[in-house]
Amino acid sequence: MGEFELIRRYFARESLNDPSVYLGIGDDCALLCPPTGQLLAVSIDTLVEGVHFLPGTPGDKVASRLLGAAVSDLAAMAATPAWFTLALSMPSFDQDWLEPFASCLAETAQGLGIHLVGGDTTRGPLTLSVQVHGFVEPSLALKRSGAQVGDIIAVTGYLGESKGGLESLLKEEPETPTIAHLRQRFYAPTPRIKLARALAPFIHSAIDISDGFLADLKHILKASHVGAKVDADAVLLSHELLAFAGNTALARQWALTGGEDFELCLTLPSEHWEHCQRKAQALSIPLTCVGEITNTDALDIWESGHKVHYTQDGYDHFRSSNG
Amino acid sequence: MGEFELIRRYFARESLNDPSVYLGIGDDCALLCPPTGQLLAVSIDTLVEGVHFLPGTPGDKVASRLLGAAVSDLAAMAATPAWFTLALSMPSFDQDWLEPFASCLAETAQGLGIHLVGGDTTRGPLTLSVQVHGFVEPSLALKRSGAQVGDIIAVTGYLGESKGGLESLLKEEPETPTIAHLRQRFYAPTPRIKLARALAPFIHSAIDISDGFLADLKHILKASHVGAKVDADAVLLSHELLAFAGNTALARQWALTGGEDFELCLTLPSEHWEHCQRKAQALSIPLTCVGEITNTDALDIWESGHKVHYTQDGYDHFRSSNG
Repeated sequence: MGEFELIRRYFARESLNDPSVYLGIGDDCALLCPPTGQLLAVSIDTLVEGVHFLPGTPGDKVASRLLGAAVSDLAAMAATPAWFTLALSMPSFDQDWLEPFASCLAETAQGLGIHLVGGDTTRGPLTLSVQVHGFVEPSLALKRSGAQVGDIIAVTGYLGESKGGLESLLKEEPETPTIAHLRQRFYAPTPRIKLARALAPFIHSAIDISDGFLADLKHILKASHVGAKVDADAVLLSHELLAFAGNTALARQWALTGGEDFELCLTLPSEHWEHCQRKAQALSIPLTCVGEITNTDALDIWESGHKVHYTQDGYDHFRSSNG
Repeated sequence: MGEFELIRRYFARESLNDPSVYLGIGDDCALLCPPTGQLLAVSIDTLVEGVHFLPGTPGDKVASRLLGAAVSDLAAMAATPAWFTLALSMPSFDQDWLEPFASCLAETAQGLGIHLVGGDTTRGPLTLSVQVHGFVEPSLALKRSGAQVGDIIAVTGYLGESKGGLESLLKEEPETPTIAHLRQRFYAPTPRIKLARALAPFIHSAIDISDGFLADLKHILKASHVGAKVDADAVLLSHELLAFAGNTALARQWALTGGEDFELCLTLPSEHWEHCQRKAQALSIPLTCVGEITNTDALDIWESGHKVHYTQDGYDHFRSSNG
């Protein structure tokens, strides 16, 4: 099977019924119709076999991980997903991998309301880049740089579960229901698009948690030139995470520093807190206050009445070998 | 050096003075302002070390090759370049490679009028994906599907030179001026943006020559449900290509089937031919009539009065191992 046949069979098989797509897969470019009066939000994300997922990971799990992570960047700006492109490098044509990959990619895309409009397939080590495109009203776009002193720091969902899922894979643990839940969180992140759209008018700054909560909060602090006080005891720990970690300390470590939860970290003025909580409840997504923005340069973490320090504050792709 | 520092030092160093960029590098997404009334043209392209360029290729040569090839897809739609994103995977932080890569990327981008607005850096085998974004008026967008029976088939520039450059690299030939010219064509393709914009109102279909002239012409024929008659003798062969190939037959083989010239293959009604030639002359770009669109299913190639057959009709990334 050639490159063109591969694209046709696996990625262009669904006829696209989206009036915003003037021309989809199959020409030199896709031609798209952006809505007027909105900003185009774009983000590109890469997964590499052996770096972001274990060698031998089935195609469906790579697909949901890839697209969920990429669309999460749109959620972090409160943008509505529209289109994506896929650059796929693989060592050889592997139908057993491609079939579930393409099926799950299509299914995940449908669930997220985003359409595949173009791509590139090449030979090479298994590497996948996805660029997502979305739209947001200029007044609603959430940036990292808007945090203000006195803001509540809030996080969505249960942090650390993705890290738990990854650890269970690395340890090759048998898949109990608890571990299945954690692995699902690693393989199939849920971008918080609806919640971000609902809260955006009340939010000062936002980031999605990809590097780890503390590391991502630091990005907000740096961009906003502020500090923060975090109450580590307030961070929700799921039953599943506690059960797998075996103790609260490790579960909390993962929740604070484990990456790739693709939940949101938000800062907002306290007067909007109750309203935002109600909006989150309506969507059945936990929204937890875990700290406050301060007028210091520091990120202070408090736990059981003491200031504590977490050293591994997230994942940084080049630091390990070149610190 | 960490991932974030790497991005800051190498890719975010130039402050962007482009009113269409609402928010550039450094947040979860870039936020961009599309012009009203135009189509957004997007294309993603990947280069893999050892597949698209030789291991050990300096960063500057990879940068010009990468961006030139990607922007060529915009030229093929007659779109004006606007923004691009970069996904860069590399095995380890390598300043000696990154410095010339980033410098040449910035320089090439400036020359093409396109701005880096975002990206992703990860550890992994050296792989680069670029997504380009441009704009085109709906009435001017050039597609593969518009060829009509009787159209002239025209190509820009001198074909096969990129293939000559690649062959000289594979054979590790010493760099004479002739070979330097061919390698420059391989490493630094010139997207035909200006010419495409100038000719667009008169053109029925277009594609950029990345897989090889005959292979790319076949894409037009398939999309347009037509056939073609090609006059192989009419294809321009540069002095440099003839000198390096050593004989006309090999030079012509490369011109017809060698990929990655990133010239344009166009079809247009004959009444516009002279006008288009004058436009091309004004831009000092050769524009050559090499055939005609026919109402057959076939691609017939004529050479010295005989119908001939070229077997290697382009590069297809998966066919070699999975034919």
